[in-house]
Amino acid sequence: MYRVETETDVSDMARGAVFLGGGGGGDPRIGALVVVGQLRRGKHPLVISAEELNDDALVLPIAGVGAPTVIQEYLVSERTLRRLLAECKKFYGRPIDAVMSAEIGGFNSIMPLAAGMAADLPVVDGDGCGRAVPHIEMTAFSIYGCRATPSVVTDDAGNVAHIFTVNDRTAEDIIRATCVGMGSRLVGAFYPMTGKQVKETAVLGSLRQTLEIGRRIRAARERQVDPIADLLAFLDVPSAQRFARRLFAGRIVDVRRETRDGWHWAQVLLSGAAAGEPEFSLEIQNEILLARRHGRIVATVPDIITVVDSESAEPLAAERLTYGQRVHVIGYSADPKLRRPEAVAVMGPRAFGFDFDFVPVEEVNSI
Amino acid sequence: MYRVETETDVSDMARGAVFLGGGGGGDPRIGALVVVGQLRRGKHPLVISAEELNDDALVLPIAGVGAPTVIQEYLVSERTLRRLLAECKKFYGRPIDAVMSAEIGGFNSIMPLAAGMAADLPVVDGDGCGRAVPHIEMTAFSIYGCRATPSVVTDDAGNVAHIFTVNDRTAEDIIRATCVGMGSRLVGAFYPMTGKQVKETAVLGSLRQTLEIGRRIRAARERQVDPIADLLAFLDVPSAQRFARRLFAGRIVDVRRETRDGWHWAQVLLSGAAAGEPEFSLEIQNEILLARRHGRIVATVPDIITVVDSESAEPLAAERLTYGQRVHVIGYSADPKLRRPEAVAVMGPRAFGFDFDFVPVEEVNSI
Repeated sequence: MYRVETETDVSDMARGAVFLGGGGGGDPRIGALVVVGQLRRGKHPLVISAEELNDDALVLPIAGVGAPTVIQEYLVSERTLRRLLAECKKFYGRPIDAVMSAEIGGFNSIMPLAAGMAADLPVVDGDGCGRAVPHIEMTAFSIYGCRATPSVVTDDAGNVAHIFTVNDRTAEDIIRATCVGMGSRLVGAFYPMTGKQVKETAVLGSLRQTLEIGRRIRAARERQVDPIADLLAFLDVPSAQRFARRLFAGRIVDVRRETRDGWHWAQVLLSGAAAGEPEFSLEIQNEILLARRHGRIVATVPDIITVVDSESAEPLAAERLTYGQRVHVIGYSADPKLRRPEAVAVMGPRAFGFDFDFVPVEEVNSI
Repeated sequence: MYRVETETDVSDMARGAVFLGGGGGGDPRIGALVVVGQLRRGKHPLVISAEELNDDALVLPIAGVGAPTVIQEYLVSERTLRRLLAECKKFYGRPIDAVMSAEIGGFNSIMPLAAGMAADLPVVDGDGCGRAVPHIEMTAFSIYGCRATPSVVTDDAGNVAHIFTVNDRTAEDIIRATCVGMGSRLVGAFYPMTGKQVKETAVLGSLRQTLEIGRRIRAARERQVDPIADLLAFLDVPSAQRFARRLFAGRIVDVRRETRDGWHWAQVLLSGAAAGEPEFSLEIQNEILLARRHGRIVATVPDIITVVDSESAEPLAAERLTYGQRVHVIGYSADPKLRRPEAVAVMGPRAFGFDFDFVPVEEVNSI
């Protein structure tokens, strides 16, 4: 158990969350605004580990769903988060014991802290993916036996829906559609689970990891060492089956984006040289799904692909990538739970309709 | 109170429902299949008048929502209707006293009979519009003070949603989106109301009217009189503020249709002559919204515009209109409740984005 103490902690967590989120999961500044506002009123998010949960505790993973391009223009109010949890309490007819991130990613790992504070609930250190994903069914929760519904969702206007689906793929379809009806953004509680299920299915420790990554990047800047090299050294731990690689260094020369069907879609082209054809590209559906060099796949989901500023190593949210930015692209292997065949079947490139297999990031030559 | 006794009654009601539905509300044969199946097992739909309801009765208007082009391919099972009412009973925590049509229109006036039989509930003789409409908020229920939500919706796969919205326009957006997520078709209970509210807001007697219209058309055929002239004479009752006009007679020469955003959209062109430019056109969003002759508006929502076969006077569902059919187009004034300014504001042409006012059908010269 630990308390998030300072505004620096919050901004470190937000920074780390954008990194782990593969640029997705929404802009963390929106959630951070709420958390910092509460810190200034003397409240502190309380983070607990899964082991501290009773097996029969009711834990609600919560998340914003929608297009980050829309979320960044609308923010989310503390009142909405409080309403979400009040609706859940009414729906389940019992008190909620803790909330958790459904996914680690910009907005979606900070927002549960804000919601937890608003409703006086602890936040479990863990999530469903150890990264952000564009589909509700793409979670370790689902792969290892929890169900996405019943879900309770709401929007800032005060509309509410309770959704019950026959499987998690259908939950994605129906909740995404509801999200479009609510203006391409909603917050909701998905995968209601017991403390026992948290211990069995969640990616644990991922919230702490956002804090560590964010801190590490900040500390390297302060010590005036190369923050990207330092981060790669920190993340690359073969003994823990985690691998980090620098995939590209260059300049963004084109961004084509679209907000459609409740997602942010984009293709980003990068060039290392001053002239000539762009040699590197990224495909984005909220998160960065894959990276190609000279047309060849060099990294894919479920591994994490993140763009960072070439000087400061600041991770960049996918919806904020723009022409002219000088960046490095980093590949970071997903949590081992998400690289098993049963997980790759649900979250690998073929699950997004691409006609090729998962390419583990460690099989690529770092630059 | 009366029982629907025979299969002929059911097919008469279905015929009348397509007429009053302005070609919309889905194909009645799908609902009729279920009702006829139950009649053959000795069950009979029980229709009651609003006056027979206690003021505190719980009445649920029910309807299919979606694109009739999709509904005609999927049918709907008795099991789904039974599940809908079981979910409603659980949701409201009390028995349902009666169901009602949310709108009169092909499928949507027969389906409540099927659902009532499946759940052993009477069906109130009335509905929210006296016609079919493409939007959930376009009802006398809404205009005169009932709210569309809470709504309980389900689909044939067994997905369920409870939807609570801040206003009825938003209910349309969110339920339509949910419907798209469910494959562009769902059945639901909307506008939960008391017996008192039924008496105050519903268009009463509309179910009986479907039976009378359907019978009248059949009887004229049997007596070998002109069924269209006979129907017009039956419907045109100026003393009751109801007017019927023949707007056009000719041949369908083009149909452009699309299933998009949970609706069936179409434009139908008609020609009276063997050659030359088509001089008459219909705009369809599930229902026929307006009719033009030589580009000039001759009828609009909320008045009812229906296409009937030129020989048999059989009303034609909008999704079944096709090249080469010889037809007459009939305009029939909406229930007076729907022609008041507050109703025209919600259901008139401007509510559909057209830049012109409602044209009462009696102001047009009949042909």
